[in-house]
Amino acid sequence: MNIAFLGLGAIGRPMATRIAAAKLPLTVWNRTAERAADFARTSGARHAATPADAARDADVIVTCLSTSPDVYSLLDGPDGLLAGMKRGSTLVDCTSGDPGTSRRIAQRLSEAGATFIDAPVSGGVTGAEKGTLTIMVGGDAAVLDRVRPVLETFGQKIVHCGDVGAGDTVKAVNQAFLAIHLLSAAEGLATLVKEGVDPTKALEVINASSGRSNSSMNLIPERVLTRAFPRTFRLALLEKDIGIAADMARENRVPAPVTQLTADVFRIARGELGEIADHVEIVKLVEQWAGVEIA
Amino acid sequence: MNIAFLGLGAIGRPMATRIAAAKLPLTVWNRTAERAADFARTSGARHAATPADAARDADVIVTCLSTSPDVYSLLDGPDGLLAGMKRGSTLVDCTSGDPGTSRRIAQRLSEAGATFIDAPVSGGVTGAEKGTLTIMVGGDAAVLDRVRPVLETFGQKIVHCGDVGAGDTVKAVNQAFLAIHLLSAAEGLATLVKEGVDPTKALEVINASSGRSNSSMNLIPERVLTRAFPRTFRLALLEKDIGIAADMARENRVPAPVTQLTADVFRIARGELGEIADHVEIVKLVEQWAGVEIA
Amino acid sequence: MNIAFLGLGAIGRPMATRIAAAKLPLTVWNRTAERAADFARTSGARHAATPADAARDADVIVTCLSTSPDVYSLLDGPDGLLAGMKRGSTLVDCTSGDPGTSRRIAQRLSEAGATFIDAPVSGGVTGAEKGTLTIMVGGDAAVLDRVRPVLETFGQKIVHCGDVGAGDTVKAVNQAFLAIHLLSAAEGLATLVKEGVDPTKALEVINASSGRSNSSMNLIPERVLTRAFPRTFRLALLEKDIGIAADMARENRVPAPVTQLTADVFRIARGELGEIADHVEIVKLVEQWAGVEIA
Amino acid sequence: MNIAFLGLGAIGRPMATRIAAAKLPLTVWNRTAERAADFARTSGARHAATPADAARDADVIVTCLSTSPDVYSLLDGPDGLLAGMKRGSTLVDCTSGDPGTSRRIAQRLSEAGATFIDAPVSGGVTGAEKGTLTIMVGGDAAVLDRVRPVLETFGQKIVHCGDVGAGDTVKAVNQAFLAIHLLSAAEGLATLVKEGVDPTKALEVINASSGRSNSSMNLIPERVLTRAFPRTFRLALLEKDIGIAADMARENRVPAPVTQLTADVFRIARGELGEIADHVEIVKLVEQWAGVEIA
Repeated sequence: MNIAFLGLGAIGRPMATRIAAAKLPLTVWNRTAERAADFARTSGARHAATPADAARDADVIVTCLSTSPDVYSLLDGPDGLLAGMKRGSTLVDCTSGDPGTSRRIAQRLSEAGATFIDAPVSGGVTGAEKGTLTIMVGGDAAVLDRVRPVLETFGQKIVHCGDVGAGDTVKAVNQAFLAIHLLSAAEGLATLVKEGVDPTKALEVINASSGRSNSSMNLIPERVLTRAFPRTFRLALLEKDIGIAADMARENRVPAPVTQLTADVFRIARGELGEIADHVEIVKLVEQWAGVEIA
Repeated sequence: MNIAFLGLGAIGRPMATRIAAAKLPLTVWNRTAERAADFARTSGARHAATPADAARDADVIVTCLSTSPDVYSLLDGPDGLLAGMKRGSTLVDCTSGDPGTSRRIAQRLSEAGATFIDAPVSGGVTGAEKGTLTIMVGGDAAVLDRVRPVLETFGQKIVHCGDVGAGDTVKAVNQAFLAIHLLSAAEGLATLVKEGVDPTKALEVINASSGRSNSSMNLIPERVLTRAFPRTFRLALLEKDIGIAADMARENRVPAPVTQLTADVFRIARGELGEIADHVEIVKLVEQWAGVEIA
Repeated sequence: MNIAFLGLGAIGRPMATRIAAAKLPLTVWNRTAERAADFARTSGARHAATPADAARDADVIVTCLSTSPDVYSLLDGPDGLLAGMKRGSTLVDCTSGDPGTSRRIAQRLSEAGATFIDAPVSGGVTGAEKGTLTIMVGGDAAVLDRVRPVLETFGQKIVHCGDVGAGDTVKAVNQAFLAIHLLSAAEGLATLVKEGVDPTKALEVINASSGRSNSSMNLIPERVLTRAFPRTFRLALLEKDIGIAADMARENRVPAPVTQLTADVFRIARGELGEIADHVEIVKLVEQWAGVEIA
Repeated sequence: MNIAFLGLGAIGRPMATRIAAAKLPLTVWNRTAERAADFARTSGARHAATPADAARDADVIVTCLSTSPDVYSLLDGPDGLLAGMKRGSTLVDCTSGDPGTSRRIAQRLSEAGATFIDAPVSGGVTGAEKGTLTIMVGGDAAVLDRVRPVLETFGQKIVHCGDVGAGDTVKAVNQAFLAIHLLSAAEGLATLVKEGVDPTKALEVINASSGRSNSSMNLIPERVLTRAFPRTFRLALLEKDIGIAADMARENRVPAPVTQLTADVFRIARGELGEIADHVEIVKLVEQWAGVEIA
């Protein structure tokens, strides 16, 4: 089974590394060609000059880009994926995408005799490196079964969520929860610090109580209390993700005031903190507004 | 060490049961006298007719009521706590209280030569029954040390958070997180169900991902997906709790839009669902608004 | 200049009546044919059986429907507008539409040699009857000039706002303001009534102060304090309108938390109050939530 | 009738000027003594060294400070108002106050044989200069009648709203409406500008339509579109005012999500823009967030 991997970003690169380590025949492509050349040099993968070239002999093409429109934009033109993909091949899109665009991509591929599954991942850079990602999949179950060996090189928990787009929907809602948990944690902890409570003590209690979340148990202690704020996942991408969740709520006529409000606060944060800020830096915005440091 | 316990409600009763089971000399009082009489009959505790009577010989008085003003209202009058409490005794208030009222109570007790700690608990009825509650304590550390043997009969993790009121502040913020996590989980899952995704599948993924919380891991699967909605902790009390957290944020000039909005949605929910609804029934309000059932 | 008018609803019917009264040759069509037949009988207008038939000899076709997609859906098919419209004719869409769909309609007409302007109106049934509507127009200025005589039969203030879609955008923002003013007026007045203040007194002051709006000066006194709540403009349509404004804000990356939140509250209200409730009945939802009547 | 006037700020000074111009015997006091000395010099009023001194012979004492607690803090001590006020005199508080503190002040004065009315004003510096202020009064109607001649020197519309505190409640709600109208106008106009619509055109339409408000008709055209942003009324004070309205809503258990959210956005704005920013500068915060100028 020949694999092509397009998009060697923060998460994509360690995912591709796991595929290469599993001795699957791998071709890589990246918009900034140097990153792909560099990867090819160290991993033994082939470096393709264009998406069409990458897709040429591939049975499975994995994409891991910023947005679904980024993936869509790779389809057309003489160098585009559709110019290279062979009938019967499958595009596995690990982008945190939006279900509408995923469905449009699936339709285009279907016309070319190829199949599509959306397969966004959760678990971050570390999860990608260790091969312990959670993968939420939308699309045909038989197609998923066929590409499962590839997914298993970087994913531990692989869940089939429904038809094309279902993976995107679940990912978007997961991200909305993450965004809401982070923002509300910042609101509460800023208040506690101003009340004179040590946030480490507060989290010790909360993390043994009903208010705990992945954010309060892991992100805040490791990244905020330490003031480390490592840049592992861009706030701009989380803003995009919760925006997808908020759009989905509206399109389905689900009143979702907390989701909508958090989406708007992240929109503000993206403007104020910039494109390279990490998602946990939303805490810094609340700290600025409150005039206090959570430490 | 003689103990008095006032407030044999859903959580208070199993807490008092643990104290009695530890063979500590126990006197109980409850506003509805029958509950106290009944408890005394089965546990061997003494049944006091009034708060003053309950406090008479007590070294440690434990209160577990709905609100701090409820506790404050027990202080005065010929039958009030202050008429019975002896110098050197300690009032341990396990109510999910507000720090301002707790400080006023502490001041009143101090004038009478007694001490006060606020010691709200987390862990629910089950935690109270098993003696595994988390207890967040505000007040003097030496006082806490003295009453610790009593707390250890029903609590597992006992954390000293700061001066009087600090326990209340941490509890209120924990409850705010709980309320926000529940409401936002309902928004997201209602959307997923309308998108055609099985919520059990969705939670399987989310609970292995960055968006997980105690609500998504325990409350929703056990109480919502099963449609059981047991009534273990009243929504009206959670509304009161997040209201305390929202007040604290404002008093400390911490912009906390998600907390404030969720407090208002719970205010709406309390009106719509009534005083006996369980806190998880906030999900039903979102379901009604969205026209869908999360199942 | 031959005119066709499609959509004889609450606003459309009095608009068409003004055109007929101005002795302009008029053909009408309505989805429920009986309304058009009835109108034709009393006004002397011709009753067309289909949109294509209505458009046949028309120089100007005026549409006044619920949503832009409703207008779009009239374009195609053997009975559709495009089957009847002649080259050089103009479609004047008085629907409170969305700019995206308006641009798509304009594009379709352009391919058929016809022109389009979006021309939503403000002023309600009374304004339509009196011919005092405000009309906000998007599209080519020369086209507007050509159809201005038709618009002047029912409109008093006609403002060219920009290219196609601009009329829709201004209308949507006006409607968002209306929705926000109504909802916030209800919040404030419910509070005042619970504080024991007579709302008539309060409005007497506010309407002479900086907080006044069209809602506080006209809608609330005439419709709420009197408990008349006449049904003149459906809440469902205002919900649609503020939804367009909220979408536009997001698409333009304008953080607009008050607009987004109000859009969600109207979404809730539409579900709770139903499709035929009047827009001012949003006040009743707040009254229900607050447990008080503003009277 | 001897008058004392305390608080010669932006609004207070022109109010006192009107009293002096009406030839009423006037004593003035100001925390920064120089402002009072300066005023006395030009107006012929007496300059008192302390609040007690100002109150000594006064029949009516008018206060115009930033907050109710500021007024309360003038009551006590050897130089305080209560040390000087004579039995039967009346304190007229024109501060935009909070009803709770006003009631406490009234109680203190009542114990000293004096009376209190809260009489906040609307109309700005210009209204004060011209004597056209709107005055909303809480307190005893007979007391109001007695002091009415004083109020009429600077006020045109004087409305008795109810018992002590009622004036404050109506003022707070008026200010909440002002804050909400300004913020939502900024959201909508920022969106329109990004859509390519001229905001002057948009306001021309909206101000002839159902979405108009005092903000859209006066403040935005005069202060935003001109980019003048004069500093006439501090955003910090409007933030305080809507905070009072938001507190009142919560205390009365009125769900008021738009009011609460706007209060929080103004809290953010006060932090970001500082203590001397004008209230209309809330528009600048939205402009910054949206990356656009409304012009």
